[in-house]
Amino acid sequence: MRADVQRVTVLGAGSWGTAFAKVLGDAGRDVTMWARREQVAEDIRERHVNSAYLPGVGLPENITATSDPAKALEGAQAVVLAVPSQSLRANLTSWRDLLPPDAILVSLAKGVELGTLKRMSEVIGEIVGIDPGEVVVVTGPNLAKEIAAGQPSASVLACADHERAVAIQRACANSYFRPYTNTDVVGCELGGACKNVIALSTGMAAGLGLGTNTMATLITRGLAEMARLGAKLGADPLTFAGLAGVGDLVATCSSPLSRNRTFGERLGRGETLEQAQAAAGGQVAEGVMSCSSIRALARSLGVDMPITDAMHRVCHEGVDPRQAGAELLGRSQKHEWS
Amino acid sequence: MRADVQRVTVLGAGSWGTAFAKVLGDAGRDVTMWARREQVAEDIRERHVNSAYLPGVGLPENITATSDPAKALEGAQAVVLAVPSQSLRANLTSWRDLLPPDAILVSLAKGVELGTLKRMSEVIGEIVGIDPGEVVVVTGPNLAKEIAAGQPSASVLACADHERAVAIQRACANSYFRPYTNTDVVGCELGGACKNVIALSTGMAAGLGLGTNTMATLITRGLAEMARLGAKLGADPLTFAGLAGVGDLVATCSSPLSRNRTFGERLGRGETLEQAQAAAGGQVAEGVMSCSSIRALARSLGVDMPITDAMHRVCHEGVDPRQAGAELLGRSQKHEWS
Repeated sequence: MRADVQRVTVLGAGSWGTAFAKVLGDAGRDVTMWARREQVAEDIRERHVNSAYLPGVGLPENITATSDPAKALEGAQAVVLAVPSQSLRANLTSWRDLLPPDAILVSLAKGVELGTLKRMSEVIGEIVGIDPGEVVVVTGPNLAKEIAAGQPSASVLACADHERAVAIQRACANSYFRPYTNTDVVGCELGGACKNVIALSTGMAAGLGLGTNTMATLITRGLAEMARLGAKLGADPLTFAGLAGVGDLVATCSSPLSRNRTFGERLGRGETLEQAQAAAGGQVAEGVMSCSSIRALARSLGVDMPITDAMHRVCHEGVDPRQAGAELLGRSQKHEWS
Repeated sequence: MRADVQRVTVLGAGSWGTAFAKVLGDAGRDVTMWARREQVAEDIRERHVNSAYLPGVGLPENITATSDPAKALEGAQAVVLAVPSQSLRANLTSWRDLLPPDAILVSLAKGVELGTLKRMSEVIGEIVGIDPGEVVVVTGPNLAKEIAAGQPSASVLACADHERAVAIQRACANSYFRPYTNTDVVGCELGGACKNVIALSTGMAAGLGLGTNTMATLITRGLAEMARLGAKLGADPLTFAGLAGVGDLVATCSSPLSRNRTFGERLGRGETLEQAQAAAGGQVAEGVMSCSSIRALARSLGVDMPITDAMHRVCHEGVDPRQAGAELLGRSQKHEWS
């Protein structure tokens, strides 16, 4: 039996990193956050808010913050990686030698790495030199702003090593945050990565003026294509029927709080990638990158993922959203599963 | 090979019956609608609108209407039953002797009959004296107002007899309505009936002020409980992952156009069943009745359906929505599938 996890470090102070730090703080843990910008760290440390990324939310007193990664990681029993998926490798490489050797690594990143086509736990395993099966992946229907507001939420902690998942479960469970454990890391990570791409597509459909029937159809067919990819990579089909699949997908695809959906809406209304990016404070949504890496992964395995393919063509090949939509609808199918 | 279906009768002039009649009309069929009230029939026949149930939508000229069921059914090659599930038995009993013997029967009703606990195709089979496997069931993510507006929609036509499903598919496919066939009638009908109950619960959660994470969790766990019921009754698990499961569930649970969701929202805001009914023009939502019949069916089979159970207790046992919600959240579960 592991000792209880009490000292947790959260690396990254975006909205989800900050909300998860709050979950840990409200569960009674001692939390240190690392923020890239000292101004954000000071805001959290001195004023117990993160006005840049989670405005209006008071953070508990047992959360502190620093912009010095060495200081942030001192004595950590668990380290939560809360940086965007495509910058995880570079960040983690610079932090590698600072990680306490026994700390449990926890990933909040959702994506597939461009170029290597690796899942986040694989990237982490490779850089830190551990078995990816030791990484705990957090996923599920978790819109950061709702969790930060203390709304009851269910979540999934996936790890091949059940004991590590349980240690994190005990560290973060509180009155409003209910984490379930799951040993299917492949399915949980693919669900988390793929849903951002599908959310981009539902946003785009909304931007084109289409309604809920279309959104529900995209969610359904999106679920089918991520399950096909998962099946090829050995995921458990049940995962896609659960919180890390349908749950996360529905939350991200239907909420106006979802960045991927909002980004897609702008594209659907006719904005360019650059305009949508500018409107999102200079960031592109995860799905914009993931559609390319997931498409490449699917192609390497011979898996058909028409929605992901359509999003890649809109985001990176200049295809008009209206044309991509018409092509998706025009696919000839007579029996739902044929 | 069957002769093409050209003459179709739609019995019932509510919003979905009218929208489906429009789908058939736009596909080039000759459609006769039956409306209970002559005023509604006249509105459709003379002015090509149904201002009572689908205001603002122009109906094609090849749709006519009457309040005389005998006249409506004359020469019909297909008969679409578009009345509420709990009144289907009484209505169909009065129409039975008027049905042309070779007409394909099509069901738009979604529910499980109170008392008998039968699915709609079983009720139809029993009354008309045919094999329920001959009935074609229409389901999927089909919000009537969006389809009536000509928005692209996918739909499912379920029938044990593939030839009948194909005949109806050819009769109703048009530029915006894409029907897929499916032979799993049990799964499709259960999906359609159960989703109304889950939509009631997502509405209730919204009425209590809860957000998208909670909605997504209810949809996920709702899907799990309908799939458990389906498994016990021999449904294909794939059905629940498709348009008749996830698709219909997501559309109904997330749209403000859904009557069941809206009804649940009123209950969540503290209105009584009677107040919510009055606000809905005197009608109770399908889910209010279905939660009782589905609960009874599940109990008779030993299937655990906690959300359906909670909805029954709120709607028919006077339990406060807040308490029912807290009890649902408080269920002790550590691994998602245990």
